[in-house]
Amino acid sequence: MNRQGLLIVISGPSGAGKGTVCQRLLQRNQDLCLSVSCTTRPPRPGEQEGINYFFVDRPTFEQMIANNQLLEYARVYDNYYGTPLNYVQEKLAAGRDVILEIDIQGALQVKQKYPQGVLIFLVPPSLSLLKERLIKRGTDSPESIAGRLRCVYDELTNTGRYDYLVINDTVENAVDQIESIIKAEKCRPSRFNFDLREFLAC
Amino acid sequence: MNRQGLLIVISGPSGAGKGTVCQRLLQRNQDLCLSVSCTTRPPRPGEQEGINYFFVDRPTFEQMIANNQLLEYARVYDNYYGTPLNYVQEKLAAGRDVILEIDIQGALQVKQKYPQGVLIFLVPPSLSLLKERLIKRGTDSPESIAGRLRCVYDELTNTGRYDYLVINDTVENAVDQIESIIKAEKCRPSRFNFDLREFLAC
Repeated sequence: MNRQGLLIVISGPSGAGKGTVCQRLLQRNQDLCLSVSCTTRPPRPGEQEGINYFFVDRPTFEQMIANNQLLEYARVYDNYYGTPLNYVQEKLAAGRDVILEIDIQGALQVKQKYPQGVLIFLVPPSLSLLKERLIKRGTDSPESIAGRLRCVYDELTNTGRYDYLVINDTVENAVDQIESIIKAEKCRPSRFNFDLREFLAC
Repeated sequence: MNRQGLLIVISGPSGAGKGTVCQRLLQRNQDLCLSVSCTTRPPRPGEQEGINYFFVDRPTFEQMIANNQLLEYARVYDNYYGTPLNYVQEKLAAGRDVILEIDIQGALQVKQKYPQGVLIFLVPPSLSLLKERLIKRGTDSPESIAGRLRCVYDELTNTGRYDYLVINDTVENAVDQIESIIKAEKCRPSRFNFDLREFLAC
């Protein structure tokens, strides 16, 4: 009998470094697999179906919403983005651990639908550093940055909703801690692949 | 402000290898400290006060019970053994992580008095191996061994009482897992030493 895989949800504010941490985590642990989202936005040059995204049209996506086939979804401007339940369930059932990199609203949706998922909140080392990163990235207006920082404050005063907090002071430290969390979660009695009959065979 | 230390309770059946695993864990992590029990039995040659045990007389021990100064205690034949609350509290308050190596009855007493303690149940890799170890040790009669094995069965069908299960297949594997558990538990929001004011100073 195969052990059910773990669903590890890595969330946190924009600029916390989710992408870099997940990339390094996957590099260091080739047995982990990254969840592939589906979206209604058209593929960009070089993006591959089933690797970067599952590309679907809007009626298909809306049918998936109606059929409860998404772990979470969001509409960003004119496009939908979501996590297909099927894909994740198949991987988990095959005993694969699945990483989901997602914003906090999505992460809370996932936790509600799949409470045994492990929700890790990645914390930037300081608000000033976060501000600096957002300014450097250059994709947000000063007003949008101020809004994001207020949002981070709210998210951090409400930490009881997350299973774990990991400070992203350095990528290697953050990945070390996430690896420990994955290892520890596998020792939880509820997840434990302990075959009592096999143990007792003597 | 100092972070409160973690109390890590390592329990499991006789023959599971608690002693060896704790010794190796302490060797590999010199910042951990082992809780020192108090007992009414007289010191054996070479045993040192405050290192192996705190040696106390029976009236003192019974006063400690009456004053609720023990995290747990048991009477074994004519002697008392117990974990002094003061000692553990001082270490935890100073930010030290404390290891408590203890039988399952004691461990459950500790968990009741100090629910934020982390209860790790060390599982021998198989019942036949456990039987072998108990026979080799030569301190138990065949009836006593049969009794112990029945006891292990009960303990293993009731794993919801433990926070974590660790299979002691090899000492290094078991210690790796315990180290991960300690690291992961420090990322729990409730234990997290996250100073929001410091984070926000920008």
